[in-house]
Amino acid sequence: MISAGTTLAAIRERKPLVHNITNYVVMNETANATIALGALPVMAHAAEEVAEMVGIASALVLNIGTLSPPWVESMLLAGAAARVPIVFDPVGVGATQYRTITAHRILEAVDVTVLRGNAGEVATLVGAHAEVRGVESIVAGLEPAELARTAAQQLGLVASVTGPVDHVSDGRRVLTVANGHALLASVTGTGCISSALTGAFLAGKPDAPLEAAAEALAAYGVAAEDAAAGADGPGTFHARLYDALAALDPATLDERTRIEEL
Amino acid sequence: MISAGTTLAAIRERKPLVHNITNYVVMNETANATIALGALPVMAHAAEEVAEMVGIASALVLNIGTLSPPWVESMLLAGAAARVPIVFDPVGVGATQYRTITAHRILEAVDVTVLRGNAGEVATLVGAHAEVRGVESIVAGLEPAELARTAAQQLGLVASVTGPVDHVSDGRRVLTVANGHALLASVTGTGCISSALTGAFLAGKPDAPLEAAAEALAAYGVAAEDAAAGADGPGTFHARLYDALAALDPATLDERTRIEEL
Amino acid sequence: MISAGTTLAAIRERKPLVHNITNYVVMNETANATIALGALPVMAHAAEEVAEMVGIASALVLNIGTLSPPWVESMLLAGAAARVPIVFDPVGVGATQYRTITAHRILEAVDVTVLRGNAGEVATLVGAHAEVRGVESIVAGLEPAELARTAAQQLGLVASVTGPVDHVSDGRRVLTVANGHALLASVTGTGCISSALTGAFLAGKPDAPLEAAAEALAAYGVAAEDAAAGADGPGTFHARLYDALAALDPATLDERTRIEEL
Repeated sequence: MISAGTTLAAIRERKPLVHNITNYVVMNETANATIALGALPVMAHAAEEVAEMVGIASALVLNIGTLSPPWVESMLLAGAAARVPIVFDPVGVGATQYRTITAHRILEAVDVTVLRGNAGEVATLVGAHAEVRGVESIVAGLEPAELARTAAQQLGLVASVTGPVDHVSDGRRVLTVANGHALLASVTGTGCISSALTGAFLAGKPDAPLEAAAEALAAYGVAAEDAAAGADGPGTFHARLYDALAALDPATLDERTRIEEL
Repeated sequence: MISAGTTLAAIRERKPLVHNITNYVVMNETANATIALGALPVMAHAAEEVAEMVGIASALVLNIGTLSPPWVESMLLAGAAARVPIVFDPVGVGATQYRTITAHRILEAVDVTVLRGNAGEVATLVGAHAEVRGVESIVAGLEPAELARTAAQQLGLVASVTGPVDHVSDGRRVLTVANGHALLASVTGTGCISSALTGAFLAGKPDAPLEAAAEALAAYGVAAEDAAAGADGPGTFHARLYDALAALDPATLDERTRIEEL
Repeated sequence: MISAGTTLAAIRERKPLVHNITNYVVMNETANATIALGALPVMAHAAEEVAEMVGIASALVLNIGTLSPPWVESMLLAGAAARVPIVFDPVGVGATQYRTITAHRILEAVDVTVLRGNAGEVATLVGAHAEVRGVESIVAGLEPAELARTAAQQLGLVASVTGPVDHVSDGRRVLTVANGHALLASVTGTGCISSALTGAFLAGKPDAPLEAAAEALAAYGVAAEDAAAGADGPGTFHARLYDALAALDPATLDERTRIEEL
């Protein structure tokens, strides 16, 4: 059953710990979004502790936005040790060979539960044509629903492809999420935040990753809609986004989420 | 004499440089809080420069929130070179062995002036039972006043244990601070900020670390109370917290601080 | 021709990618300012990818605020590979020998287009007397216009010396920029943001770095003026700064910029 409200209520009750090995740019923002939602973030990347840290966590989020060799090694260590759902965010994959090689290395070595990326990033990983400029990208010739389904099948995971409308697939079913707001594109790290919140929703609903991934995007999108109402631009939107995440009401959330099955 | 207003006035007049070797998550936020208060932050972590940097600083703040071996080595180097008050924030100690071992290493090698942590972190360091989940913790069976006093005696420093009511002890006296607001718990790094501001207050009142540590928490708590008034949630509270720190009035601050001796 | 509005319009049309190798403290903020202006930021620092990343970028920004040996090596690699304008921000140079040596190393090895710093930092690099405290500084006995001209001549670049009034020189001409607001000094990283936006303006006007550097500071200053109107302090000013950058109107910007030639 799809119910972002039910999963959000479970998250707020259990306060699951979400272990993030993520990029420098968004650490503060992903931590604050995770707390505002109702879960508990921890950022830890040392090879000396990641296996132990993920052992007390309920989800692991790997993000290569500012990757370097020691961080990649720690992601592999944490991924190997994890007995919990894992989100992988292949930030900027396709922009450089190092990102592409690293993303494939992680996908091969780690049992990723949900791959969360934009269309260009996911297309790169399935070998489709994509033009990636830094951390933004444009895909040619592949409908997002098809892209999500193909990635899910080819990589053996749930593919969560975000965009104006998000597409989430387990290789068989495809869910679309039509919540969100254009201002999200004007703040850095909003994609990374969606990955972190996906981790929290997986912790709240570990047995149904397809639904959990879609619910995370829908809840986040509803918060973005609320934050945009009354914002004067990207800066005040950004501050209000945490207010809106904290104010999400599990009891009424499902009336506002726009999740559909294709 | 306890007077947060007097120390704040001294800080604003001297603008002491506070050298932080801290975690990636909160660097921006601790720097902004330090500036808003009226001191001058510098973040520098390279082994090549930390000894020289601390040589021009008036306080040193060490924080292991996102520790790794090169950062720990730099903390030890800076701590050995420092001729100024030192704050140590053992973020997440107890969550992993690496954090626990490192925290003890720092406490043994460095002449820490003030240990600033939550109850679980401080309890871990004195061998009391605590359940630490990531960077949050719950302590069992030890009153915070007793915990602060025990830690101060056992570790030979001022223990500053923050919580709904803060307890600061030099092993003999215990000061309580009843300022603050629940919204502080909804923003990451607010504990780290309290450590950074403790560094600024130690720079402003280096000869009375017990009082300075309590004054720092009280001034910060008053700012949090002001920030919460009119905030719509954690995001706008966070932005308003810097406004409130900058707006603190040394002339009237002491009327609002709630510091008591047990 | 000097026209911040024209260059801003070009930036918003082309959305140039600006590659930043910068410090941990300001990564999020510089990325958000770059997006708000209308360009596209990417933060990447691994030696494994910086040459390739700068190959798809339209400008490179190097900033030593939290330098360490691997980051410096990557700055040198990216600088050597770059075929685009390069901004160098020597944060805190003069505070430690390591910063001074590194800044000179970068200036010698890299073909820097614009050096953006405060008076103390730039003075240090030309051997003038300056007292540098951490990342702040005070210069003695050198007018800023003369300082900018001297630095430009001596180092063979455009020197952009920011302060209450900014001075930008190519060694022959000196442009002054009188936009801005005192609240900029109450938020960390606002100097680093000016360097990142200088990168964006260089990407929008690559053939006229003197003018582009002045236009960047003027546009940023206008945004700061707008952000300050209605702000309650440094925190709300900071959030509003991104709103103001995004709201800059290319059509009317030149009426508000205060750029003059000495």
